[in-house]
Formats: sequence, structure tokens, C-alpha cells
Amino acid sequence: MTQRIWNYISGLRQTSPLVHSITNYVVMNNTANALLAAGASPIMAHAHQEMKDMVSIAGALVINIGTLDEYWVESMRLAIRQAEALKKPWVLDPVGAGATPYRNAVLKELISTYHPSVIRGNASEIMALAQVSVQTKGVDSTHQTEEALDAALQLNAITGAVICVSGATDNIVHHGKRILLRNGDPIMSRITGMGCTATALIAAFCASTPGELFEATTAAMALTGVAGEKAAAQAKGPGSLQMHFLDILSTITEDEFNSSLNIEEEYASIQS
Amino acid sequence: MTQRIWNYISGLRQTSPLVHSITNYVVMNNTANALLAAGASPIMAHAHQEMKDMVSIAGALVINIGTLDEYWVESMRLAIRQAEALKKPWVLDPVGAGATPYRNAVLKELISTYHPSVIRGNASEIMALAQVSVQTKGVDSTHQTEEALDAALQLNAITGAVICVSGATDNIVHHGKRILLRNGDPIMSRITGMGCTATALIAAFCASTPGELFEATTAAMALTGVAGEKAAAQAKGPGSLQMHFLDILSTITEDEFNSSLNIEEEYASIQS
Amino acid sequence: MTQRIWNYISGLRQTSPLVHSITNYVVMNNTANALLAAGASPIMAHAHQEMKDMVSIAGALVINIGTLDEYWVESMRLAIRQAEALKKPWVLDPVGAGATPYRNAVLKELISTYHPSVIRGNASEIMALAQVSVQTKGVDSTHQTEEALDAALQLNAITGAVICVSGATDNIVHHGKRILLRNGDPIMSRITGMGCTATALIAAFCASTPGELFEATTAAMALTGVAGEKAAAQAKGPGSLQMHFLDILSTITEDEFNSSLNIEEEYASIQS
Repeated sequence: MTQRIWNYISGLRQTSPLVHSITNYVVMNNTANALLAAGASPIMAHAHQEMKDMVSIAGALVINIGTLDEYWVESMRLAIRQAEALKKPWVLDPVGAGATPYRNAVLKELISTYHPSVIRGNASEIMALAQVSVQTKGVDSTHQTEEALDAALQLNAITGAVICVSGATDNIVHHGKRILLRNGDPIMSRITGMGCTATALIAAFCASTPGELFEATTAAMALTGVAGEKAAAQAKGPGSLQMHFLDILSTITEDEFNSSLNIEEEYASIQS
Repeated sequence: MTQRIWNYISGLRQTSPLVHSITNYVVMNNTANALLAAGASPIMAHAHQEMKDMVSIAGALVINIGTLDEYWVESMRLAIRQAEALKKPWVLDPVGAGATPYRNAVLKELISTYHPSVIRGNASEIMALAQVSVQTKGVDSTHQTEEALDAALQLNAITGAVICVSGATDNIVHHGKRILLRNGDPIMSRITGMGCTATALIAAFCASTPGELFEATTAAMALTGVAGEKAAAQAKGPGSLQMHFLDILSTITEDEFNSSLNIEEEYASIQS
Repeated sequence: MTQRIWNYISGLRQTSPLVHSITNYVVMNNTANALLAAGASPIMAHAHQEMKDMVSIAGALVINIGTLDEYWVESMRLAIRQAEALKKPWVLDPVGAGATPYRNAVLKELISTYHPSVIRGNASEIMALAQVSVQTKGVDSTHQTEEALDAALQLNAITGAVICVSGATDNIVHHGKRILLRNGDPIMSRITGMGCTATALIAAFCASTPGELFEATTAAMALTGVAGEKAAAQAKGPGSLQMHFLDILSTITEDEFNSSLNIEEEYASIQS
């Protein structure tokens, strides 16, 4: 698997796919820079009149609801419909799931009406999304990681999407398969948009290697974690972390990557 | 006072309050990163349907009119009403006050209809805001600092808000009390959003220590000034200033802070 | 010419003109910081009610369609009309020209109804814009630089605007004059908004030296290229490139600038 992940990373640098992001205002600059650093080409656009056309030229679509409003939610619907019509992958980042009824209602619509290829969130977002989606079952266990894993399995079963729960350990689940990634550094949570960046990179890898959603998600999370960990080792705080992170995304070599990657695979052992 | 200010800073790192910012597009990324670096948790949202809910989970609200439009002004109203209903502090940043009649009309509405806890602006913004508010008296003195102080005292008397005039010397006034802070560096004005960052930090400290608006404002301005001054000493220009500033916000120690703080207090000696 | 360019740069630092940018969400922070670093003062605003007033106090206007929508296009129209009424320069950045019919329709309206002072884009944007504008002639040659130059000459003839095609070599054309600039570094394309920054700097120089549109454009592109080239020499990747770029924009000296500038002038030798 380690070798295959590197192949995704070097493949992204060569194919430079277009990624259309409908994302939040806070992270647009970071996200575009991270996509460029990793080798992809960002598009950010939201006008209703051009959603179909933009999705048509892109290799994948990011839907990030961080600063949603009515206009942008309609942009999302238009883009998603076109992505699904053209069988292009789209990746959902349910930022702030559970924070407000409006956010939950939008998320419920998006995951019940459409079919995300991948969903990535932190533990509380994934748990909130599972609650919104399942409704028949509260999430009441006490251990957050296990809770989130349970929620991820439910979401995978209901939506068919690859589910990634990011955190100190990233969990990626799909149809009985599970990957655990233990890279990264706690300081990564002290800059805004690191999760949004990971989501955008998932879309980039899905675009670069169509059809391999589970492995593409794994490659994106592995690259984010390893680059973040290496950046944290050089950083004096969150400001320099952001700078080093972009530098390393762009320049990391196969040896550097492989010697840092901390990955564990489980198969068929987990079920909801 | 010096010791109390440090207690605010260490308290913010421990309490990590949620700060809801309705702010301008230009500085959203900076502001979120500065809040995170100082220990707070940023929320940025503006959809009308979720304003009440977002304010309900936040500890304080930032209203920054930098890139206002009709939709966002209504978001501001909805958020402010909920903050006032729940007795949560809200902080006004009157970006560009005086630049256009529209901006002035919005500001006049906000400070006459609602009750900001704190208002922070530069000298010309505070003077413009006082003119908008008072109307019976032009600001015609020739010495800008004194003009601004006079405007600040008027605004404090009219609105009841703590008023902060930031500049080479920051002036914070409230009910006859006045703090002067002489930290910072001129290069801080060469990066966008340093004032907006200070405003967001004021909200964070207000959320972290409810009821202590004057001291919370002082702590925020002191932290901004000291961190900016230390960052400037290391910076080779505005690009590296931004990076060092975030690093220092996050890592500054009590000794480093206290040995740099340049603060002066006046009581009962000033009146409009 | 070299000496005159430096005079523009030092003049910008002294005059500090106000530049009003109606630009895209992705680059607002970069653009504001680049304007500040070079010595200008940025305004970013888009509310319809204040477009006339903002343009009235600004020295120049940037129209960048990167994340356009209906509301923002109307903001653009209102701002452009006021700029033209007051004979203030406005600079068009046709981001993503050719990507969608909506984008093309907006661009067609802007350049046929109004009169941009300068247009800056990359080769494909300038070629797309010429196609939109000319319509009678496809762009079908095979050599991209030559294609773009041909498109630039057509656009100059039709619109009367100074046309800048940025790339490995920047070409600036106007009424038979042509400047070639060969500074910069390929890594500049790995951070978002470097072209948008160049456009904003063009507006700043046009504001700083009214009436000298061709030389102002040359000065902006020269400063961007030289600062980017010097930043690239120090950078370890795109993250540190952005930081060094802002530092150098702010601190570059006459000797450093002149010793790096790679400029070639042609006169009267080119015609469409």
C-alpha cells in the first residue's frame, strides 16, 4: 500500500487535474495554494449560470458548507447534479455539522438527494452527520473515537460514500475496509482550514485516479498528515506551520514520504 | 494591571471560547488564524437562517463591516439581536467609517439601535463614527490624537461601549478610565487586517472573561501590540511579519509578555 | 526606461494611492497585502449603494472576475461607470476567460460597453478574450506566444486598452509599442493569485502616475517579476515564496531592482 500511495502522489503531480471547489470564504486561499502545491489546478466559482460548465471541465468537485447561504447552496445543487450526470467524483466536507438546524437540513438534503463519492469530517462532524442521516439512533456512547467510527460505518452503509474521520488518527472506511493513519501533529488544528485542505486534496486524487475513491482518499490523508507532521517539526508556531506545510506538499520526495508514513490496514473485520 | 493582563491571556488559552465573526472577506483567514493562535475557536457564518443558532453557541460576536452589503447587514442585525437577547458581548469594527454615506448609515443604525459592548477603530474611523453619531458637533481640532480621544469619549458617553482607538498609542476609554498602550510597530500597518485581528481578539477576551469588557479590551490590544512588536523585530518585511505574529501569539510566555508591555493607566482625569 | 521604472516604484511608495479592487474571494488577502507592501492603500468593497462613492475616493479601480456572480457583476458596472465618468483608470483581469459562456458574456459586455485602461491576463485568457471580442476570426495558430501576441494586438486595436500578456515573458503592447519582460520564475505559478496581484499593482501604478498607462503597466509587471524572481531564489517552496515576495515588494532597493531587471523594448515594428 505504501508504494501505491506514493504512486498517487507522483501521479497527481503529473496529471495536474482541475478541481472545482465550492468552499468557504475562510479557506479559499489556503485551499487553492494547497492544491497548487500538490500539483493540482484549482477552480473556485459559484455563479449559478456557470456551474454546469465549470463542473464539465473539472476532474472533481469539492462541496464545503463552511460559509453556506441560500445562493451558495443552490450553486452546490447545480454543481452536484452536473457532477453526477457526468459521473465525476464529488467530495463533501460537512463543516460545522450539528452546529445549527439549517446546516443539518442542508446536509440532510445533500446526502439523501445526491450521492457523494467521499465524505471527510472530524469526529463530531461525522457523528452529527450520521445523526442527521439515520435519525433512528442517537449517538450516545462515551468514547469519541469509537462513536465516530460507528457513525462512519453507518454513513458508509447509507450513502455508499467513502467516509474519512480525521483526527489524531485518521480513519477511512468503505465496505468493510478500514485504513488507520497516524501521522500529523496536534498543532495542525491551530491553523484554520487544514481539514478543508485535506478534503480538497481528496478531490484532487479522485480526479487524478478515477474510480479509486478509497485509495485516493487514503493518499490525500496520508500526504496531508505526513506533510503536516514534517512541517510541525520545523515550525515555531502556527504561522510558520502554514508556510512549511505548503513548501513540503510541493517538494516532498518518495523517500521522505515513505519513511514517515504510519499506516495500518484492516479488512473485513469491521461492520456496523 | 500587568499581572491581570497576563491572566487574561493564559485564561483565553485555557477556556478556548467560541467567537462568531461576521467580518470582511479580506481578513477572514487571518482573523481565524489569529483567534486559533491565541487559543480561541473561530466560527464564521452569515446565513440568515442560522444567525440565532450560531450566536447561541458562541461566547462573543464580532461585527466588522469591511465588505458589507445588504445581505450581510441583515446577518449582522439578526446576530446582534440574539447576542443582546442572550446578554453576550458583541464588538464593532467600523471599517472604513466615513468613506461612504452607505457605510455611515449602517453604522448609525447599528450603534443607535443596538448596544455594542466594545468599539475598536483607528483614529479616523472613531472620529467618523462620532460624527455620524453625534451630528451636532463637527470634529475640527487639528491634532489627530486629541481629536480621536475626544471622539472616543463622546462615543463612550453616547453608546456606553468601551472605545478603543488603535494607533501608535492605543487609547482605551470607558467611564472616566483610560488606558494607553505604547507597544506595536509601524510595519504592522503594512499588512491587511491587523486591526480586524485586534477586534476579534477583543471579542475572544470578552468571551473568556464575561463582564470585564474594559480589561478584556486592554488585554487584547496589549497582546496584539506586544506580539506585533516582537514579530516586527524578527521580520524582514510584511510577509514574514504576518508569519512571526501568528507564531508569537501562540507561544509568547508570561516573562516575554510582561517584560515588553508598555502600559499607562489614567483614572477619573478625563472627561468629554 | 530602467530608470523611469524605478521612478514609478519609488513614486508609488511616496504617493500611496487608494486602489479600489472588485476582485475574487480567493486572492483578496494576497492582493491587499501586495498593494500595502508596494506602498499603495487597498479598498475592497462591492455593495451597490457605495460603488460610486468608493470609486470617487480611489485613484484607480481593479475589475477581476475570478469569482463573479450577478450581484458582483452589477457592482462592477456601477464602479466602472463612475470611474469612466471621473476619468479614472480601471484595469481588467479576465480570470478564467473562455472557461464558461457566462464568463465570456460578462467579459464581452465589459469590454464592448466600457473602456478598460489596461487588460492583463495569461496567454489563454487574452486569446479567449480576443475571440469573444473579435468573433470574426478564430485563433488557430499553433505557437501559443505568437497566438497570444496576435490576440493582444487585436484587443489593443479594438479596445484601446494597454494589453499585458503575462507568462515566462511578459508582453505589454499599445499602439505599436511593445515591451518584453523576462523576469520571474516558474514557481510563481504555484501560488494562487500572482497574476491578480500583478493586475492590482498595475492599477496602483496607474493611480500613482495618471495618464502614463503603458509605462505604469510596465512598472507593475517589472516589479512583480523582479520581486518574484528574487523571492524564488530564497524560497524552499510555494509557501515561503509568498512570504519572501511580500517582503521583497516592500524592501527592494533601486540597485537591487535595476541589476535584476530584464527588459526589451520594440517600437513600431509590430502591427496586427
